[in-house]
Amino acid sequence: MTSTPTAVDLNADLGEGFGAWRLGDDEALLGIVTSANVACGFHAGDPATMHRVCRAAAERGVAIGAQVGYRDLAGFGRRRIDYEFGELRDDVLYQIGALEAFCRATGDRVRYVKPHGALYNTAAVDQGQADAVVAAVLAYDPALPVLCQPGSVLFRQAEQAGLTAIGEGFADRGYLPDGRLVPRSRPDALVHDPDAVVTRATRMAADGEVVAADGTVIACQVRSICLHGDTVGAVELARAVRSGLEAASLVVRPFSRQDPAG
Amino acid sequence: MTSTPTAVDLNADLGEGFGAWRLGDDEALLGIVTSANVACGFHAGDPATMHRVCRAAAERGVAIGAQVGYRDLAGFGRRRIDYEFGELRDDVLYQIGALEAFCRATGDRVRYVKPHGALYNTAAVDQGQADAVVAAVLAYDPALPVLCQPGSVLFRQAEQAGLTAIGEGFADRGYLPDGRLVPRSRPDALVHDPDAVVTRATRMAADGEVVAADGTVIACQVRSICLHGDTVGAVELARAVRSGLEAASLVVRPFSRQDPAG
Amino acid sequence: MTSTPTAVDLNADLGEGFGAWRLGDDEALLGIVTSANVACGFHAGDPATMHRVCRAAAERGVAIGAQVGYRDLAGFGRRRIDYEFGELRDDVLYQIGALEAFCRATGDRVRYVKPHGALYNTAAVDQGQADAVVAAVLAYDPALPVLCQPGSVLFRQAEQAGLTAIGEGFADRGYLPDGRLVPRSRPDALVHDPDAVVTRATRMAADGEVVAADGTVIACQVRSICLHGDTVGAVELARAVRSGLEAASLVVRPFSRQDPAG
Amino acid sequence: MTSTPTAVDLNADLGEGFGAWRLGDDEALLGIVTSANVACGFHAGDPATMHRVCRAAAERGVAIGAQVGYRDLAGFGRRRIDYEFGELRDDVLYQIGALEAFCRATGDRVRYVKPHGALYNTAAVDQGQADAVVAAVLAYDPALPVLCQPGSVLFRQAEQAGLTAIGEGFADRGYLPDGRLVPRSRPDALVHDPDAVVTRATRMAADGEVVAADGTVIACQVRSICLHGDTVGAVELARAVRSGLEAASLVVRPFSRQDPAG
Repeated sequence: MTSTPTAVDLNADLGEGFGAWRLGDDEALLGIVTSANVACGFHAGDPATMHRVCRAAAERGVAIGAQVGYRDLAGFGRRRIDYEFGELRDDVLYQIGALEAFCRATGDRVRYVKPHGALYNTAAVDQGQADAVVAAVLAYDPALPVLCQPGSVLFRQAEQAGLTAIGEGFADRGYLPDGRLVPRSRPDALVHDPDAVVTRATRMAADGEVVAADGTVIACQVRSICLHGDTVGAVELARAVRSGLEAASLVVRPFSRQDPAG
Repeated sequence: MTSTPTAVDLNADLGEGFGAWRLGDDEALLGIVTSANVACGFHAGDPATMHRVCRAAAERGVAIGAQVGYRDLAGFGRRRIDYEFGELRDDVLYQIGALEAFCRATGDRVRYVKPHGALYNTAAVDQGQADAVVAAVLAYDPALPVLCQPGSVLFRQAEQAGLTAIGEGFADRGYLPDGRLVPRSRPDALVHDPDAVVTRATRMAADGEVVAADGTVIACQVRSICLHGDTVGAVELARAVRSGLEAASLVVRPFSRQDPAG
Repeated sequence: MTSTPTAVDLNADLGEGFGAWRLGDDEALLGIVTSANVACGFHAGDPATMHRVCRAAAERGVAIGAQVGYRDLAGFGRRRIDYEFGELRDDVLYQIGALEAFCRATGDRVRYVKPHGALYNTAAVDQGQADAVVAAVLAYDPALPVLCQPGSVLFRQAEQAGLTAIGEGFADRGYLPDGRLVPRSRPDALVHDPDAVVTRATRMAADGEVVAADGTVIACQVRSICLHGDTVGAVELARAVRSGLEAASLVVRPFSRQDPAG
Repeated sequence: MTSTPTAVDLNADLGEGFGAWRLGDDEALLGIVTSANVACGFHAGDPATMHRVCRAAAERGVAIGAQVGYRDLAGFGRRRIDYEFGELRDDVLYQIGALEAFCRATGDRVRYVKPHGALYNTAAVDQGQADAVVAAVLAYDPALPVLCQPGSVLFRQAEQAGLTAIGEGFADRGYLPDGRLVPRSRPDALVHDPDAVVTRATRMAADGEVVAADGTVIACQVRSICLHGDTVGAVELARAVRSGLEAASLVVRPFSRQDPAG
């Protein structure tokens, strides 16, 4: 009897420039990740950048997801905004549709939705904002998965609404024993050692576990691992994570194209 | 032998508010027109307004078109901007996709594209901008009609690219003998008499003719007549035009749902 | 011995349109108020509108204040945003300076600063945002008064920093016994009877008192009363308040030009 | 008898990031230039960046100028926009005032105005846009110099209006025999050899001459030389130009602080 190899997805934020401004190394990341969270214009991502990234992703077989955020170019979507429910739902709907146009133009389509920045963090704990994101996805296409953190309010609300919630892990972030991330104010918020990051990524993907900050082993059931491309050494680290996963005989492919039956 | 009644569409700009700001009487116009040119967020139209107008249009059977414009909220899209080809194509693509999201959310879809303001005027005479609009529609959906002025560069380029160009007429505007509109600087740019407007609309729709400023009768082959809702008396005039067309036994219905064999 | 007549200021939000969009009746209000809170472009107020309102205010002797708000045109500054301290201070500084340019162009100058919408409400209770507003005014001109609610955190922080805090009252809003406004969710949040509004305005201005929602008389020491112009009947009510104050022998004039010695 | 050493200014665009995005090496340029054209928020430059750059410039004795541009963040101010006169004047006024706030906060003031990108190019040939810039400066402070190209329409209109026009040269750009720049479409638009750039800068500053593309020596009377910092090698080239000017015994200092009598 042969066992089915375990599959894992690698996602990263792409297309986060705006007009004359660039952020991160889209080209390098497209050679590493299997899912591209493409910024949709409200916190980053002008239409020409979106088009270019979608075309490049489609050519490489990288799955395209809508990186939706608050309407806040000046704050890069990193400042919490107290939206009304309908306004947030409609801002998310608008962004998904806008990205879809570039997917269509390149013969592809939007494969998933992932909130960005302060919306990601707020929807993880605030039911109102989580429900607004869920309502947008439901209205657009109930078959569209939502990429978020396992155990978050968004994960729970998405599943309760009948959507597919996909859990993601952060191999370079410390975890609390309850499964949340170590706050950035703490010195152990980030894992700096590249080897440790690779080891953590592999364990998350293969065994659904991660060692928390207090040394306990906790569940971390994820189908995708989030990589970063906008800091020094980030691309090299991302490449190392991919190599480590492949060396551990994991199949690296988009979660949105995985056959559930393995 | 019975003759087939002639059909004509009535279009107007809707959803041209932004956030706390309103412009025009969307509700009244939705009871008169058969096609709603919905602003898509770049020169007017926030997502919540787009959603509300799309829902109301879908409920009333009014066809929804993408009123695409320059990225210029402060100028309401009325200032010509010298876009590069790819930037303009992508700005238009983005707007069509964004509107489509609200059509999907209301069980409908985008039925046509109509440029707004300075983009309308520029694409009517400038091949570069006309081609950018055409390229956006081609990339999005080659079956999507473009609503514009007969004889314009955009009309010609759309047809040459294999798109369906739909001609529209302006019953309340004076025409030059060559088919262009009388410039707004001239005193006869606008037709103020409501009865004259109704008569002109009916003649355009029934006979494909209009009396030009010099008194000559010229061809004006249109399948839609553009109405306005943002000035004093505009809604009453729009209603009078519709009544006049119906009194002349014309069938008022969306051009996007007309049976070509009609 | 003659007593010095008591003076009171009337302020209202002006210039809250943007581009093609208008909000409120600036022209009518300029004939009633003595201080104009002019929107500075971040939540409302394009440069041409700012220039026009400043010129009209200067011509009528109406004092010009900077109505500063969050960078949120789509939300009209009514959604709380979690700004970092420096970002908020600099956004406020920017807006004051921008408005000053139009005051200079009309031979006048900015006389005070008043936060708008969610910034007003947040700075009333949140020390971080209050301090950011205070820091902006201190950096710009320590002699510039801040118009806000008596008892608010902003009022207190402004005074502690050595700024002049000017208290304002809301004659058409219910008050809690502790001096805060009745939340808008309660049925007694608004005072609808015009006569009652006039009476309350006069009592606030003449005696520094207001009858709270529970019937108790509480202190309400204000040097300005805030009027509104963007709802039906608002302009008539504003006019009635002014007439009522004058009938009670109060001197209606800008607080920024009042001689403390009378 | 000793001759007075000739003085020349070096200017560059600074603060051209926006929010999370950066462009160019502000820190390095501040150690080289004597005048900083600080972006004012319409095409680039968020308030926090403006504040930071103004503080750094003030600390180093670098003169601060308002780099004013079209309202076009997505296009970085590089796309011509057909503004109405009053709208453009007011957009320029607004930007000057906004920058002034940060100069005040750092104990300094705006020393000059320089249009950016498409506004620079358009005001050099279009009297309407040139006059709008001139009207803004006149309304703000008639003593404020305008930095632009000698021979341009803006230079002429500024002088005719009684403003001080300061001519600037581009040592790394080819010149046509009539004094205009070689269009970027031509291969000789840019001077690539660093030694040649330094030689040209020195000759412009010392002798008021430049060798045109056809080999003729033409007048190029400039009091400032524009450097760039946003391309590879640009900072090194800027440093070389400054060293070359100093080696030629030219005094490098802000034009806005030069004593005309030497």
